[in-house]
Amino acid sequence: MNVLVIHGPNLDLLGTREPHVYGTATLADIDARIRRVAEALKIDVRTVQHNSEGAIVDELHRAAATVDGIVVNPAAFTHYAYALRDAIAAVGKPTIEVHITNVHAREPFRAHSVTAGVCHGTIAGFGAESYCLALRALADLLRR
Amino acid sequence: MNVLVIHGPNLDLLGTREPHVYGTATLADIDARIRRVAEALKIDVRTVQHNSEGAIVDELHRAAATVDGIVVNPAAFTHYAYALRDAIAAVGKPTIEVHITNVHAREPFRAHSVTAGVCHGTIAGFGAESYCLALRALADLLRR
Amino acid sequence: MNVLVIHGPNLDLLGTREPHVYGTATLADIDARIRRVAEALKIDVRTVQHNSEGAIVDELHRAAATVDGIVVNPAAFTHYAYALRDAIAAVGKPTIEVHITNVHAREPFRAHSVTAGVCHGTIAGFGAESYCLALRALADLLRR
Amino acid sequence: MNVLVIHGPNLDLLGTREPHVYGTATLADIDARIRRVAEALKIDVRTVQHNSEGAIVDELHRAAATVDGIVVNPAAFTHYAYALRDAIAAVGKPTIEVHITNVHAREPFRAHSVTAGVCHGTIAGFGAESYCLALRALADLLRR
Amino acid sequence: MNVLVIHGPNLDLLGTREPHVYGTATLADIDARIRRVAEALKIDVRTVQHNSEGAIVDELHRAAATVDGIVVNPAAFTHYAYALRDAIAAVGKPTIEVHITNVHAREPFRAHSVTAGVCHGTIAGFGAESYCLALRALADLLRR
Amino acid sequence: MNVLVIHGPNLDLLGTREPHVYGTATLADIDARIRRVAEALKIDVRTVQHNSEGAIVDELHRAAATVDGIVVNPAAFTHYAYALRDAIAAVGKPTIEVHITNVHAREPFRAHSVTAGVCHGTIAGFGAESYCLALRALADLLRR
Amino acid sequence: MNVLVIHGPNLDLLGTREPHVYGTATLADIDARIRRVAEALKIDVRTVQHNSEGAIVDELHRAAATVDGIVVNPAAFTHYAYALRDAIAAVGKPTIEVHITNVHAREPFRAHSVTAGVCHGTIAGFGAESYCLALRALADLLRR
Amino acid sequence: MNVLVIHGPNLDLLGTREPHVYGTATLADIDARIRRVAEALKIDVRTVQHNSEGAIVDELHRAAATVDGIVVNPAAFTHYAYALRDAIAAVGKPTIEVHITNVHAREPFRAHSVTAGVCHGTIAGFGAESYCLALRALADLLRR
Amino acid sequence: MNVLVIHGPNLDLLGTREPHVYGTATLADIDARIRRVAEALKIDVRTVQHNSEGAIVDELHRAAATVDGIVVNPAAFTHYAYALRDAIAAVGKPTIEVHITNVHAREPFRAHSVTAGVCHGTIAGFGAESYCLALRALADLLRR
Amino acid sequence: MNVLVIHGPNLDLLGTREPHVYGTATLADIDARIRRVAEALKIDVRTVQHNSEGAIVDELHRAAATVDGIVVNPAAFTHYAYALRDAIAAVGKPTIEVHITNVHAREPFRAHSVTAGVCHGTIAGFGAESYCLALRALADLLRR
Amino acid sequence: MNVLVIHGPNLDLLGTREPHVYGTATLADIDARIRRVAEALKIDVRTVQHNSEGAIVDELHRAAATVDGIVVNPAAFTHYAYALRDAIAAVGKPTIEVHITNVHAREPFRAHSVTAGVCHGTIAGFGAESYCLALRALADLLRR
Amino acid sequence: MNVLVIHGPNLDLLGTREPHVYGTATLADIDARIRRVAEALKIDVRTVQHNSEGAIVDELHRAAATVDGIVVNPAAFTHYAYALRDAIAAVGKPTIEVHITNVHAREPFRAHSVTAGVCHGTIAGFGAESYCLALRALADLLRR
Repeated sequence: MNVLVIHGPNLDLLGTREPHVYGTATLADIDARIRRVAEALKIDVRTVQHNSEGAIVDELHRAAATVDGIVVNPAAFTHYAYALRDAIAAVGKPTIEVHITNVHAREPFRAHSVTAGVCHGTIAGFGAESYCLALRALADLLRR
Repeated sequence: MNVLVIHGPNLDLLGTREPHVYGTATLADIDARIRRVAEALKIDVRTVQHNSEGAIVDELHRAAATVDGIVVNPAAFTHYAYALRDAIAAVGKPTIEVHITNVHAREPFRAHSVTAGVCHGTIAGFGAESYCLALRALADLLRR
Repeated sequence: MNVLVIHGPNLDLLGTREPHVYGTATLADIDARIRRVAEALKIDVRTVQHNSEGAIVDELHRAAATVDGIVVNPAAFTHYAYALRDAIAAVGKPTIEVHITNVHAREPFRAHSVTAGVCHGTIAGFGAESYCLALRALADLLRR
Repeated sequence: MNVLVIHGPNLDLLGTREPHVYGTATLADIDARIRRVAEALKIDVRTVQHNSEGAIVDELHRAAATVDGIVVNPAAFTHYAYALRDAIAAVGKPTIEVHITNVHAREPFRAHSVTAGVCHGTIAGFGAESYCLALRALADLLRR
Repeated sequence: MNVLVIHGPNLDLLGTREPHVYGTATLADIDARIRRVAEALKIDVRTVQHNSEGAIVDELHRAAATVDGIVVNPAAFTHYAYALRDAIAAVGKPTIEVHITNVHAREPFRAHSVTAGVCHGTIAGFGAESYCLALRALADLLRR
Repeated sequence: MNVLVIHGPNLDLLGTREPHVYGTATLADIDARIRRVAEALKIDVRTVQHNSEGAIVDELHRAAATVDGIVVNPAAFTHYAYALRDAIAAVGKPTIEVHITNVHAREPFRAHSVTAGVCHGTIAGFGAESYCLALRALADLLRR
Repeated sequence: MNVLVIHGPNLDLLGTREPHVYGTATLADIDARIRRVAEALKIDVRTVQHNSEGAIVDELHRAAATVDGIVVNPAAFTHYAYALRDAIAAVGKPTIEVHITNVHAREPFRAHSVTAGVCHGTIAGFGAESYCLALRALADLLRR
Repeated sequence: MNVLVIHGPNLDLLGTREPHVYGTATLADIDARIRRVAEALKIDVRTVQHNSEGAIVDELHRAAATVDGIVVNPAAFTHYAYALRDAIAAVGKPTIEVHITNVHAREPFRAHSVTAGVCHGTIAGFGAESYCLALRALADLLRR
Repeated sequence: MNVLVIHGPNLDLLGTREPHVYGTATLADIDARIRRVAEALKIDVRTVQHNSEGAIVDELHRAAATVDGIVVNPAAFTHYAYALRDAIAAVGKPTIEVHITNVHAREPFRAHSVTAGVCHGTIAGFGAESYCLALRALADLLRR
Repeated sequence: MNVLVIHGPNLDLLGTREPHVYGTATLADIDARIRRVAEALKIDVRTVQHNSEGAIVDELHRAAATVDGIVVNPAAFTHYAYALRDAIAAVGKPTIEVHITNVHAREPFRAHSVTAGVCHGTIAGFGAESYCLALRALADLLRR
Repeated sequence: MNVLVIHGPNLDLLGTREPHVYGTATLADIDARIRRVAEALKIDVRTVQHNSEGAIVDELHRAAATVDGIVVNPAAFTHYAYALRDAIAAVGKPTIEVHITNVHAREPFRAHSVTAGVCHGTIAGFGAESYCLALRALADLLRR
Repeated sequence: MNVLVIHGPNLDLLGTREPHVYGTATLADIDARIRRVAEALKIDVRTVQHNSEGAIVDELHRAAATVDGIVVNPAAFTHYAYALRDAIAAVGKPTIEVHITNVHAREPFRAHSVTAGVCHGTIAGFGAESYCLALRALADLLRR
């Protein structure tokens, strides 16, 4: 089972910036944790990070032929990136939207997602564990 | 570790009504699955279901003294039950909001949650597995 | 043919309170009239009144196995009770929403119904006769 | 007792167009059914159909001197025709707004009525029977 | 100087209907008063009344070649009749919008005019005198 | 018959500023014209101009005991000055709101009046003539 | 003089939960204070607390026959409980809405009350003293 | 192949009014151009113009039996004429909405269409050529 | 203890104008009542009334050095006077917003307060007694 | 005559994804069809596709010096990409916005275009033919 | 070069009130700094402060004849004072709106300016330096 | 002191496109002016321009380690680019948002900024001088 994990804009700064909001784990730490969980779940996982909506759309298109499921943290793109929404719908693989923080407990604009409607489900608020729960959910979903 | 799982209004009809939306598992099936996962995670779990907002608020108040964490599927209460919101905040235990379906892919009113802002995190769209993922998230959270 | 008639919150005060708005008939008068019309239509009718949304949801769930159709006056619940909406949809029996007054001729908030969308039809503005028309409509509907 | 039944725009196409939405009865079928019910209720009924708001307003003005009550299905005019609203209010006869379909279960714009506020009551969702229920309601109202 | 006075929908009922809102003068009374004032101002005046938006648009088109100014009481069309708005703009003659009542002191929807923006000015609230003031204003405007 | 004419904020600059919007007549020119028309109508008129909402409210209070009617051009206060609105209502004399320009043909915020609802009527778009028409309307109103 | 004091949802947790928002007084402390003030004012007071809207509606209905006035802190129900609103209006006794905190200084949703419009007055922001002020206001009102 | 071209309100004034907005071609010029293009495309075309919504609805109903496709420029009706919308949907023939000007570059209200959602496609901004492009599109569509 | 009581715009007309809304007590009557209650509470009280927002802001600034608490009835300023809001916040003394009438039971615009959010609490609906209750609340607050 | 055709995000997936929405033609098929039509119209055409807003803006800047007109399908960028809007306006060449589907018949967010206002015209709903019609429109426009 | 600097409501309290928001510099300190910068830029500067909108409007009117440019900090008037907006437009001198704090980082209502649209430019967020930057900008502008 | 100046989308076209809106200075001219002012202020400045939001986010991330302050003209990204907003917040350096034109005097959508709330301040409307003022503001800020 192949899974692509996509980190959206500004997540490359995790751990070194605004740790009171996003925690102290770096993206490398999170990717390591994701790989450990993936291994335990017998999932082949690949992680990428992009700051450009276009790059994420390209990544999703390439993934269409090779992956079984997708975990995406659209970060700020969540709130306006309709092209990303269309890409998720077009690729048509089970996709789970994750957020490190609880988006409902922050600025009002963060409660609105233009991408969640074309995903299979959403998980938000558990830090790095949000990704791990998403991997488990994908495993459960794809092996059913 | 004690965890209370609260099923909101109409969830007692699961499995027998609108299976194309909510799946064929009954609430008893889901509770059995929750108990199996809880056992594996060494969590003492208790599950309840109520159709009245006041009954859920009462349940939360009673739980304040005895549980370590809460999993709540507020169902339709998600969209207007501010008293439930205040109860979650007042009890002050880590609480995870779960939904069986992906609320963002249904009627527009279901995308708005008045309770999520006072929860620790949210998980939606994975059927009965939403509860199990929430138990894992609670375990991760409380044992950290 | 079994029909359940549900009176929503505050309708137990009919006849004694605000007669300039709701008329002078008491709920007992209305129930008597409903029973006369039901008898004429050869309908077995049962009437209940509740001030709690949860109690109406419970009532609907119990009715699912035994009734052929439902007449409900959600009163103030009309405007926000999404759990009641979900219960009507889940039970899946032909349901008619009735109102004693013409809700469009009163405060603006009364023009918005969250329950009508999952009912078969709506009748408003005819006093106790609203219920009787609903019984006729149900009879017409179920005997077709 | 004289009653005027007004069918609004596009209702002349009933039965031959979009039967999955509006049913297979033609307007002639509906008028026949209306006449049978009217006869049983000892009501002198006249039915008209117009596609122009101005024509309906003219019809209402002419009716003012001769009818005791009015049944109107404003169809699409329901949502914006303030001149029709003013005509109903100016004529001042008991008027019942009917709809063949349940307008609350269709496109969002159909849930808003600019005419219902000046009518005596509303009946929606029962097909041709909506008109018959309105005749009964008028009879009940005028003979009280 | 030729002036066309257009009375919009339902104004033919003036005097006989809702006199507490619109006064007891009939449209004939108002037209007589308009003619007296016009004569005093040496204006050739013609008055018409239509219940159909299309008929008013036609009237405006015909008037384009022969009148110097227009007084229009769009009545309920004020609030939604964009075709009437476009007709006033297309004809391009000085046009004054009048209302018998003070539209700002009635239902909220009456405070919004889609036609006033393409008129030269507006006069509201003075009963039949609204038309007479408009004639004076036109005379002042056209003789400047 | 005593009438007070109140010019609102910035109207003291009339004629010297933005003549393409407000015309070339100065406030003195307008006041002279108002006096000529008042004399012809046998009205004792007094005109004042204030740039402060409080000063206009004070002026209205003082006028309560001595004037029979009021003409007010609230200028920019039209759109937010609820204290001015309350003053007009409290004084309780027939008051006419006038505007030099057609407020519906300018910036969107100018189409909304918080004061018109407590006035007897409104006249807008006729330059200085707006005031003269208002005097005539008041004369007609008070002598009826 | 008989007065009923109703505490809404979650107020049973006062003093033990979120003391930085609601203060350290328990509901028992507040009730004791209410009773002392009532005694001084020669008011027979009874206090109740409910977490269910239906229970409060029932309480109000029972009170209709025996009390002279009502003090109600609807807590979170303030913002959506139209059935509670209708109950207050139906019972028709002078009712005062109180809040422990200043609802205008908290989350935006707390500034909107659906119940205040049918109450006699509102008092908010004074902690337990809000209730005492309401008792004084009721005494003043009922003894006038 | 039979095609009906419907020109909406005020389009009869084309070429003589507001040429800076709508160009100098008259409706006769445009109709001639439409006929030339239709001839080249072997389409039997008929063109009509109406200023009344009801007349356009009637025209559409009559066309249902005889035409293969429809080109409609609803002009100002675009923004509010739900009866026209329902007529297009009821007739069920491929219909193309055209506009002479680019409606998105004018007043904000012109960007909203209540009719486009039930048409096959839309073409706007090309003057008379908008109609010709629509004929080509219909030909392409119907001959596929 | 020094307290400043500020009456906002139009309150100088109390008793003589619109007594059906505001009661028959004059401002002098209310001030006398305020002084009696203040004396009983051993509060040195000073009352002022202004019709200008700027004058109230000035008054608040001067009061900063000498008063312990403030009671303000912003009247119509409640709904838009952000400069008054900022003045209350800047002065930083415990301030109570009072209203003579129940603002939630009147025009919709009166339900919105821009000043309450920076006050300690609000009291509305009790006539002159609103001020007296506010004095008691201030005494309770400042002597705690 | 040089024309640039720009395909926006996700259009590279045409034909292989969601064919029930977008049809079975691939982007290569569409480009071939565009080239055939361009050849017939004696237009030198170049087609590009980008998933990044920045890349489309760059493309438009480069095109400014060499092309006579532009056809752009902004796809999802239509609804939020103001930088694309500014680029179209800055380049200043006649630009036609096209859509494969009828955007008015899909999700509500697709009815709003931030780019159409700075284009010459819009064509939507005709599949690949939308591009061909745009080429014809450009030819007509540029050769006039 | 003559420049008038206008400080809006509550700015006279600078330095002594809410220093965590507005800093510790008093208005006298800021005026001294403004004068030093003005001297360096060879600008004759005059500074005034008013708490009343009318007083600022008067000040602007007087300044029209004598100043070359204006710097205005409208403070809370920014958000509703349309009379101030009209005064700035009427005076017609280059005017720069300044704010001490970054209005976009505070309460939502502070992000909306009714005055900025008629100013030459805006500067916000730099404390007293906001005024100095505005003086430099005016110097640059007027000496070009 | 190191400062990065970022020009957003379409600013590379400055001087050659829409000079009536943006002036005749090219981006090179502006950059030269920026460098002269920076030199005078002893600031090491680097300027970049990007048409892609992702590229600006990348640039900001790289700058985090080397610059002391940032000047950014987000151009059209101002109105929707939440990823840019998050990048400015994450980098955490004093950032000033500048605009060449007065955004409040243009299309309504330009008055809304999603980025200003995380900046230190904003400067708009002074052409190239906006950047120079921002450099001065940064110098003042960083050297304090």
